[in-house]
Amino acid sequence: MDGAIEVLAQEGARGLTFRAVDVQAQVPPGTASNYFVNRDDLLTQAGGRIYERLTPDREVFVDVLYGHHDVAHLTRVMRETVERVATFRTGFLALLELRLEATRRPELRRVLTERVRADLRFNVENHLESGMPGDETTVELLYSGLNWMILDRLTLPDLFDDEHLDRLAAAAVERSLPR
Amino acid sequence: MDGAIEVLAQEGARGLTFRAVDVQAQVPPGTASNYFVNRDDLLTQAGGRIYERLTPDREVFVDVLYGHHDVAHLTRVMRETVERVATFRTGFLALLELRLEATRRPELRRVLTERVRADLRFNVENHLESGMPGDETTVELLYSGLNWMILDRLTLPDLFDDEHLDRLAAAAVERSLPR
Repeated sequence: MDGAIEVLAQEGARGLTFRAVDVQAQVPPGTASNYFVNRDDLLTQAGGRIYERLTPDREVFVDVLYGHHDVAHLTRVMRETVERVATFRTGFLALLELRLEATRRPELRRVLTERVRADLRFNVENHLESGMPGDETTVELLYSGLNWMILDRLTLPDLFDDEHLDRLAAAAVERSLPR
Repeated sequence: MDGAIEVLAQEGARGLTFRAVDVQAQVPPGTASNYFVNRDDLLTQAGGRIYERLTPDREVFVDVLYGHHDVAHLTRVMRETVERVATFRTGFLALLELRLEATRRPELRRVLTERVRADLRFNVENHLESGMPGDETTVELLYSGLNWMILDRLTLPDLFDDEHLDRLAAAAVERSLPR
């Protein structure tokens, strides 16, 4: 699955073949085709694996739950989240490839929709239960705005410098709060 | 170029061949290769054409410049922008394919970066000169947040219903303003 993520990011969804995964994962030819029923299965499982690898460590959750719940804390947590997601560069790019492939594959679209929905629901619940500033809309606005900022940073890295993106992310947090 | 946009959206960047463009545009084999120097040229020109087709009509600019410049007006303009971009579905999807392809092609990355930067600069200047509520950060937050909402709507259409997305877009406008 990790090999499939690398192939997706480097070659796009159309380049994702069992053979390419074998080469990437440095396993004997025919191995990938033994582990996945078909391409849909390979695409879907690669998507699941990306979310698994993006899940923060336990201490991050503890920090979110028990930190000082002011705007500065929320900004720090969001910065860490952006760093974590952007650092797993091939994972984010592979997810975009999967999103585009999902426009052509109903089953993949269904699985990705469920995954993103569950992820958002988890973030909203975690946010509200931990007493972070803001409401459900805050979480949804941060999800949208920060994801596009990561997309800019990974696909057009010269568009904004780091300092500009950092200021923009901080403004996204501050302004996402209800008045 | 319009044929190339359709091929990009349907087949991805790897599916974009001169032959596929000929078939899509219903022109004799060999036509596309006569009009474009190479694939880089084809990709770059397709990107330029998408921005050309996304440029709003003159009356939209007049409306932006001379409307009542309150939050309700800005919300309406942003709703129209989202509608215009999302309606040209293949254009948005093709631009995403180009962004992913840009991670592999420095020349395409340079051209796209310039294009997005010019587009953002134009939007910021237009926003400030027309006396719309908000500042430069407002425009940049709307650019990020609304683009990701369009991406959700086009790639995972069942994630949010129309009413939810509409409320979220309105909240994005309202909360993008400085306090």
